[in-house]
Amino acid sequence: MDRRKVLGIGAAGTVGAVAVGAVGARLVGTAEASERRSDTAAAVGFHGPHQAGIVTPAQDRLHFAAFDVTTDKRDELVDLLREWTAAAARMTGGQDAGTLGSVGGFPEAPPDDTGEAQGLPASGLTITIGFGPGLFRDANGKDRFGIADRKPAALEDLPHFPGDAIQPEISGGDIAVQACANDPQVAVHAIRNLARIGFGRVAMRWSQLGFGRTSSTSRAQATPRNLMGFKDGTRNVKAEDGADVLRDHVWAQPGDGPEWMVGGSYVVTRRIRMVIETWDRTSLGEQEAIFGRDKGEGAPLGAKKEFDEIDFAARNGDGDPVVPETAHVRLAHPDFNNGAKLLRRGYNFVDGTDGLGRLNAGLFFIAYQRDPRKQFVPVQLNLARRDRLNEYIKHTSSGLFACPPGVSGPDDFWGRGLFGA
Amino acid sequence: MDRRKVLGIGAAGTVGAVAVGAVGARLVGTAEASERRSDTAAAVGFHGPHQAGIVTPAQDRLHFAAFDVTTDKRDELVDLLREWTAAAARMTGGQDAGTLGSVGGFPEAPPDDTGEAQGLPASGLTITIGFGPGLFRDANGKDRFGIADRKPAALEDLPHFPGDAIQPEISGGDIAVQACANDPQVAVHAIRNLARIGFGRVAMRWSQLGFGRTSSTSRAQATPRNLMGFKDGTRNVKAEDGADVLRDHVWAQPGDGPEWMVGGSYVVTRRIRMVIETWDRTSLGEQEAIFGRDKGEGAPLGAKKEFDEIDFAARNGDGDPVVPETAHVRLAHPDFNNGAKLLRRGYNFVDGTDGLGRLNAGLFFIAYQRDPRKQFVPVQLNLARRDRLNEYIKHTSSGLFACPPGVSGPDDFWGRGLFGA
Repeated sequence: MDRRKVLGIGAAGTVGAVAVGAVGARLVGTAEASERRSDTAAAVGFHGPHQAGIVTPAQDRLHFAAFDVTTDKRDELVDLLREWTAAAARMTGGQDAGTLGSVGGFPEAPPDDTGEAQGLPASGLTITIGFGPGLFRDANGKDRFGIADRKPAALEDLPHFPGDAIQPEISGGDIAVQACANDPQVAVHAIRNLARIGFGRVAMRWSQLGFGRTSSTSRAQATPRNLMGFKDGTRNVKAEDGADVLRDHVWAQPGDGPEWMVGGSYVVTRRIRMVIETWDRTSLGEQEAIFGRDKGEGAPLGAKKEFDEIDFAARNGDGDPVVPETAHVRLAHPDFNNGAKLLRRGYNFVDGTDGLGRLNAGLFFIAYQRDPRKQFVPVQLNLARRDRLNEYIKHTSSGLFACPPGVSGPDDFWGRGLFGA
Repeated sequence: MDRRKVLGIGAAGTVGAVAVGAVGARLVGTAEASERRSDTAAAVGFHGPHQAGIVTPAQDRLHFAAFDVTTDKRDELVDLLREWTAAAARMTGGQDAGTLGSVGGFPEAPPDDTGEAQGLPASGLTITIGFGPGLFRDANGKDRFGIADRKPAALEDLPHFPGDAIQPEISGGDIAVQACANDPQVAVHAIRNLARIGFGRVAMRWSQLGFGRTSSTSRAQATPRNLMGFKDGTRNVKAEDGADVLRDHVWAQPGDGPEWMVGGSYVVTRRIRMVIETWDRTSLGEQEAIFGRDKGEGAPLGAKKEFDEIDFAARNGDGDPVVPETAHVRLAHPDFNNGAKLLRRGYNFVDGTDGLGRLNAGLFFIAYQRDPRKQFVPVQLNLARRDRLNEYIKHTSSGLFACPPGVSGPDDFWGRGLFGA
């Protein structure tokens, strides 16, 4: 069991690519770290053509944060993006956020790392950044950073969907950061240290913790269950779907929009509150008709196994469709949405109670795509108009961010293409 | 890999003790469940002289909920406690909450289980119940359930401590339930199903999710770190401390109070918000002086290793104490609190942001003890008056609950001794 083993696949490159001071490396030799050494402890490589955290097999825990940029100075923003990129490369490799961490720091200065992840392995941490519409032109129409002419057309604000109950204070933001890991302490540590580094230049607008990933992004993963108890997202876009599918549905291509977004992706976030108390008093048959799947196996109604093809034409003895016209699986299916697919990697959440004796719980939906105008927007319009699930859910937060391509190496940084630096 | 292996230690008894219908058993054969089979997947036995979840080695995740009883009928409350006990025995054994779960239910009825833990192992789930002062006499002084004369003297409301910023809407409650597990989905599932079962008899008053246990309750566990990045609770009461220590400090004894509490324990909960942004800008030396430990190793100042004895008398070259008079380790130490010790099993939390650009984060403190009047109250008075940590923390929620002894077997239920049923 050596340090390399702990960091695991992809880490050798990362460790080689950033400056590793001995003082900044995390203590990874504790008994607890040893116990946890496994695939879930390994590091995910940071550098590459695409950002990690998109087709990476979905980790179990999420801390998502949206920041508003509080400086008007372009240079300060670019400096921040450079510093964030360096810190993200270190943290995803299982190291402290800075070279003078909480262990190797000077007594006279605040540590370069807040310390709560000391002794924990990399835990599959990925950190993925996205730029919101407001970064290009703020609420007053001002182009603070001289990048308005580089705004992708695909980054236009999402429309209002029927039934939306969006709360502005937990929606939008100039920059979003998604931290996913197999240990929540590691995901929280990542966001918290980026916020610390950004002090005076960004302020956290909102953040969301999630547990129990609700989608699989790899065929090696079983389909998990949402808080309605159902397997959802069985037909999610997965890493193994191959380059063609990812090209068509996930990665922005040359000619789609500005050059700096090629190899990037657009992420839509929706905080979907579930009225689970009402749901829990609905009959099993009703629940299954609403989803269009059986609850135990996750098989489409009329089929036997989760991954069986859905027969939308099948009718029962009464002549009614076996999979109802308003079933979630039907309305969300590519066949009824011009072939649109999404790469979903959402998480369950419980944020205490709502003051009415009910859990404030639901699904924090996250979906990556090549162009939201052709993917999320038409699918959500279809769902918002007709899905019977709407009786039990409410969208309370919304976000749309342009996630640039990956960071190619230690000299590159998030947004270099955008800022032409 | 058989079902018994998944359930692991302690489960054989549990499975034997409750009625296990084939339809109600969770599907545990998925690929994902197999991957996760390990010590953290095993079941913890439910029946015994003490409730599980107290000296049980602290699991990694928490869902804590406080309920208000909405019925005034004693019989309905007793029925609820019977139903909750049966459901808790099943769920801690890795089964559905009811015999007709989400898989084996009737299409015409709501399932006996909400389904989101299908396919997940027991995950070390423990469910621990406690009764608040309001159960014995409500806010209007009314003895709704005829048990006022059985209220333990040790269950008197906690005093107001200097600096307290307690929010009543997230404090107190008639009944508290602590669900701890190594998988948050399993802990959330447990609380959610108890709430579902309690519909019409109880309403959830508040709930708190936690991750990253901040205390060890077994010497086999490494001391974890709180969100200030420090190892805290090094000298926590641990299961291996032996019967004498647990008798003196954790379990209510004959003669302490009412007979129904013998073998039980009193739990104090405090939601401690940390102003981590300010803390993060404090120098490393200052942080270490405030805690009285070094940040990297967790050793007391002046010592080398975490578990070294603390030399409170040592002075530096200037004649000042090496461990400052106001250091947290000094003020919380039994030597300065009449020997009082607590069994802590708190958790870190992050509940989004606070609207001021800061994470709403901190420590959800949980401490079990034989008598809070001699343990938590004097220790907290000492801390509230003098601890320099107070500049960085704020207590926003408070709870005190009498946790009855364990459930002896399938005919017993939580609170049988209290209700004399």
